[in-house]
Amino acid sequence: MTEIRGWASRGAKQKLEPFTYNAGPLGPEEVEIAVQYCGLCHSDLSILNNEWGLSQYPVILGHEAVGRIVAVGNYVKGLRVGQKVGLGWTAGSCMHCRECMTGNNNLCAEAVPTIVGHQGGFADRVRAHWAWAIPLPEALDISSAGPLLCGGVTVFSPLLTFGVKPADRVGIVGIGGLGHMGLKFAKAWGCEVTAFTSNPSKADEARGFGADHVVSSHDGAAMQQIANSLDILIVTVNRPLDWAAMLKTLKPNGRLHVVGAVLEPMQISVFDLMFGQKSVSASPTGSPSAIATMLEFAARHHIAPQVEHFPMSKVNDALEHLAAGKARYRIVLDTDFV
Amino acid sequence: MTEIRGWASRGAKQKLEPFTYNAGPLGPEEVEIAVQYCGLCHSDLSILNNEWGLSQYPVILGHEAVGRIVAVGNYVKGLRVGQKVGLGWTAGSCMHCRECMTGNNNLCAEAVPTIVGHQGGFADRVRAHWAWAIPLPEALDISSAGPLLCGGVTVFSPLLTFGVKPADRVGIVGIGGLGHMGLKFAKAWGCEVTAFTSNPSKADEARGFGADHVVSSHDGAAMQQIANSLDILIVTVNRPLDWAAMLKTLKPNGRLHVVGAVLEPMQISVFDLMFGQKSVSASPTGSPSAIATMLEFAARHHIAPQVEHFPMSKVNDALEHLAAGKARYRIVLDTDFV
Repeated sequence: MTEIRGWASRGAKQKLEPFTYNAGPLGPEEVEIAVQYCGLCHSDLSILNNEWGLSQYPVILGHEAVGRIVAVGNYVKGLRVGQKVGLGWTAGSCMHCRECMTGNNNLCAEAVPTIVGHQGGFADRVRAHWAWAIPLPEALDISSAGPLLCGGVTVFSPLLTFGVKPADRVGIVGIGGLGHMGLKFAKAWGCEVTAFTSNPSKADEARGFGADHVVSSHDGAAMQQIANSLDILIVTVNRPLDWAAMLKTLKPNGRLHVVGAVLEPMQISVFDLMFGQKSVSASPTGSPSAIATMLEFAARHHIAPQVEHFPMSKVNDALEHLAAGKARYRIVLDTDFV
Repeated sequence: MTEIRGWASRGAKQKLEPFTYNAGPLGPEEVEIAVQYCGLCHSDLSILNNEWGLSQYPVILGHEAVGRIVAVGNYVKGLRVGQKVGLGWTAGSCMHCRECMTGNNNLCAEAVPTIVGHQGGFADRVRAHWAWAIPLPEALDISSAGPLLCGGVTVFSPLLTFGVKPADRVGIVGIGGLGHMGLKFAKAWGCEVTAFTSNPSKADEARGFGADHVVSSHDGAAMQQIANSLDILIVTVNRPLDWAAMLKTLKPNGRLHVVGAVLEPMQISVFDLMFGQKSVSASPTGSPSAIATMLEFAARHHIAPQVEHFPMSKVNDALEHLAAGKARYRIVLDTDFV
């Protein structure tokens, strides 16, 4: 049994408050992690505000937790007390369905999100199924690693899943929390990288993150110039785009892949897909093996998200900062329970 | 120089009339085919009625021609006079762009449709670039082969392109000219095949073509039963569907692939794609190598479209029959110029 202290919301759009709960006995396949840092992701805001209609309160938010394992259940595999691990969007999956048995655990219909019906990482401790507590490579800076666990793998996974090659041209739409990591990953992947942003003030930073080209999607001439050139376009924003215009940037056989939680239906013309045999797709975060691969790749290529730190006790300030669109580019909360 | 006699329309929605034109000297990379049979495809109607806004008149329709080569240009490769060949939607491509050079000639931006700015196969002769005149396997029945050249490869190409495996479950939406060939191909491919039709009178025939299951997309219980079960869904109809309902039939990583010319934009929810990492895509007919592979596969598995024959001189009756939705399932015109 563990008394866990965290920062919880008791209802939609409420301030987070100190909250202590009795986590009960540790499950036989669970690990308990002492949280050192926890990233603040835009989907924490979406759950806080019940934008997706699936929030359960009270909820301790936070699903980009890193720290050390302090307890392991009797049937935990491959992990030990003291090990540095990270936990992302998912805290558990059934482990026996077709998706889990083929390594696509993030597509398991029974997957348990870390902050839905489960208490998250803005806390001194967080629990997870062993499969979802991913060991951190020694070389990785633990203080900035949190955002890799959800945001990072979300933009990395398409490169891995869809067989993107270093010879390919990759577009990243939106230069924010997800997009700036997407630029870094795509650059390190060896690709020619184009950043799409409607905010010209971000162009220089986008180049710093790895963009070879920066294009405003409102610039017709620039859009014309890159028509028919990209192999994959990864959309990290969560608002509707001019999908027809974005599809035109793709080569034949190109893919427009959405990782942002766009709530409005996409309007897609069949002919825009058909003549170039193009695809539109979307994916949720990544599997445990994708997270492990991403962490290893990040360590090898010295990829870290650009973060701002807040003490965890200032979580409400951090949420306001994020909601105001001021985060540059990702927020990490440093655990400071006393 | 060849005087070519055919059946042409002089404007949108007009009856076809006898039409003779001087085809000029044969191009160095062209072959001339004496047409024996020519399939009548729904896209002949679309071009006749200028539904896609790209028709040019006068136009001899017909783009599923089979016959024997009667002349070859000086730089034709791999074909000889007397050879039995078929010609489909495309009569030429640039041969040097990235798509042509990677075998995706059907995605060439300069591809010449057989009946757009080019005279088609409702004629005694038709011409094409050598790459698009595909030799017919000896075992294939020439009198019913025409519809394979456009309709056949259109539904076959997705099986080939997207790596569909015999262990997969395939759905075919719409049991018409394209769909009935889709059922035959998917069955011979070794897959479990589900036919979707809103016309219950077609259920028995669908089973005859190879469907293991027949589902009405209006039957909520049946749709519920096959939820999460298909690897790929090939949509052959040209009207909008309940895309959300169709996506639910797919397994994680499943693909909804459209080969019907749906003019209305598809409304696609990002979340419907995201949670199962699903894709939506579309494709146009197939490449020369896909056509050749399809013809070989059809010959090996004794696959032929179910056809009704009309003499070519009755082409206007045949067009009416097709437009009235009465074709069961594909129409072939037998050349009868006197």
